[in-house]
Amino acid sequence: NDKLKIFSLNSNESLAKEVAEAIGRPLGQCSVKRFSDGEVQINIEESIRGCDVFVIQSTSNPVNENLMELLIMIDALKRASARTVNVVMPYYGYARQDRKARSREPITAKLVANLLETAGANRVIAIDLHAPQIQGFFDVPIDHLVAEPILTEYFKGKGFNREELVIVSPDHGGVTRARKMADRMKAPIAIIDKRRPRPNVAEVMNIVGNVEGKTAILIDDIIDTAGTITIAANALIESGAKEVYACCTHPVLSGPAIERIDNSKIKELVVTNSIELAKTQASPKIQQLSIAKLLGDAIVRVFEEKSVSTLFD
Amino acid sequence: NDKLKIFSLNSNESLAKEVAEAIGRPLGQCSVKRFSDGEVQINIEESIRGCDVFVIQSTSNPVNENLMELLIMIDALKRASARTVNVVMPYYGYARQDRKARSREPITAKLVANLLETAGANRVIAIDLHAPQIQGFFDVPIDHLVAEPILTEYFKGKGFNREELVIVSPDHGGVTRARKMADRMKAPIAIIDKRRPRPNVAEVMNIVGNVEGKTAILIDDIIDTAGTITIAANALIESGAKEVYACCTHPVLSGPAIERIDNSKIKELVVTNSIELAKTQASPKIQQLSIAKLLGDAIVRVFEEKSVSTLFD
Ligand SMILES: Nc1ncnc2c1ncn2[C@@H]1O[C@H](COP(=O)(O)O)[C@@H](O)[C@H]1O
Ligand SMILES: Nc1ncnc2c1ncn2[C@@H]1O[C@H](COP(=O)(O)O)[C@@H](O)[C@H]1O
Repeated sequence: NDKLKIFSLNSNESLAKEVAEAIGRPLGQCSVKRFSDGEVQINIEESIRGCDVFVIQSTSNPVNENLMELLIMIDALKRASARTVNVVMPYYGYARQDRKARSREPITAKLVANLLETAGANRVIAIDLHAPQIQGFFDVPIDHLVAEPILTEYFKGKGFNREELVIVSPDHGGVTRARKMADRMKAPIAIIDKRRPRPNVAEVMNIVGNVEGKTAILIDDIIDTAGTITIAANALIESGAKEVYACCTHPVLSGPAIERIDNSKIKELVVTNSIELAKTQASPKIQQLSIAKLLGDAIVRVFEEKSVSTLFD
Repeated sequence: NDKLKIFSLNSNESLAKEVAEAIGRPLGQCSVKRFSDGEVQINIEESIRGCDVFVIQSTSNPVNENLMELLIMIDALKRASARTVNVVMPYYGYARQDRKARSREPITAKLVANLLETAGANRVIAIDLHAPQIQGFFDVPIDHLVAEPILTEYFKGKGFNREELVIVSPDHGGVTRARKMADRMKAPIAIIDKRRPRPNVAEVMNIVGNVEGKTAILIDDIIDTAGTITIAANALIESGAKEVYACCTHPVLSGPAIERIDNSKIKELVVTNSIELAKTQASPKIQQLSIAKLLGDAIVRVFEEKSVSTLFD
């Protein structure tokens, strides 16, 4: 399998190293730097002619830098005669800009899909896209992995009493995800039902489902400023939950997120390494799980032209 | 002409205001900000349905931020039913990555052209592209303006004695540009002829042409780290030039540029406002000329479906 090449850009180097180890292949040699004026400078330092190349890059913060690195790398690989260029995006930035919520808004998630294809991506591997519809923004094949089983395995390891457990969706959009985890843990679900009775009146937090005396696990795809999740955690405790865990796939954790989590009723926040956390995003409450094996398996299956969907049954 | 709309993004607001004033139209209402996680957030705050929209944005430093703002704005305008989206790029970033100089290099200048078209640009207006061949990277019409007449007019105003003047190209690539200025000023030209006799031996600065006792005007398209231009200026003085002026269209001025210019033999550096200078790029030697009228004239002519090439005869 010396026709399988894996390259890392700058967003997520340690994950890329883990993925390469999991597959048992070295990372491809390349340097990704900046010219003096801030322009991206890429040098691919080994031949990739005729190879199936996998580029690992999350378009996490700094999203525009990371996205441009990715587009320029795809261009360089294509011009260097790669057989296929496969983009592995553990985190897909701009996924929340996936529709016109108001007049004259961009649909940046679709623009990003078009830009990747224009640069020359032949295939995309993504995890927990904010909306599964983003798959349809691509005309090239896209493999959509889910991290929920990894999060669930971790919580299973805690040996909670099944009768005392409840899986909670922080909003209506996330119920399907909570349902999957609940099935796997054989636990019931609850939903945080936010309502604004009238405009300019504070939201009411209503909890649909029984949480009293229970260990609640909040599950979401993205935690960004952590407003929703910390308010939900506190509402659960107020409604009689014994303790609250939270988990998500993508720890964006921008702005006041860490402060909010540290000051919240959340006992532990479990996330994946789809996004590499900065030093300023450290918190004793955060537990980061690796998706390297999942990605490695997906890469090998794509390379061997086997179905990827069997990975998460 | 209420179907003509001009929008500014964040790279070059004061130039955009000047252009709008020159045309006698208000700037379009829009807000271009960042979400908490660094993603670009654009809101166009007036209807542009059926309009010919001109977006002014240089892809100068921070180039990736400015380029993504531009692509997302084009997407939003197109989806908001603009009749045409016309991109005015006073400075075209990544223009120096216009060919594979070594194996496996990207051709980012071409990638940028493709990205602009994919986003939905119907036409591009640019000034002094680093290589005129970049025009051919586009499948949509591109108007290529030149700033040399603006620079030349400024130097004419100094009333130099024509016999004591020489226009100097700092390298072989810029001779055509120097020739044009020399014709307009009825002055001779000289060329800095850099040679490296053997590998790992310092370059030799040879000056082709007579500069002794003369006022030399160095002309280039881009001044980035200012290494070339300051070495050239000092070589001219050593070869007996009386004084040295320098000028360029695009003042990138990154890294040690300002320090080098301040410490060089350059008497005055004349640039345009294709790139807005940061506070850290201030120097008593720099004189910035405006290209607002040139851009305004080009925009009006494009809007009226008249030829733009007459603007620089
Ligand atoms: N990076 C971002 N940070 C915060 N909000 C965003 C971001 N991108 C998009 N949005 C907004 O989030 C909303 C979509 O979120 P959701 O309802 O969770 O799908 C839209 O109204 C967007 O305007
Ligand atoms: N932003 C940049 N800063 C410095 N050098 C660059 C930049 N972009 C491209 N280059 C290099 O500059 C050379 C092209 O410059 P030129 O010979 O003046 O056209 C190429 O070898 C590029 O690798």
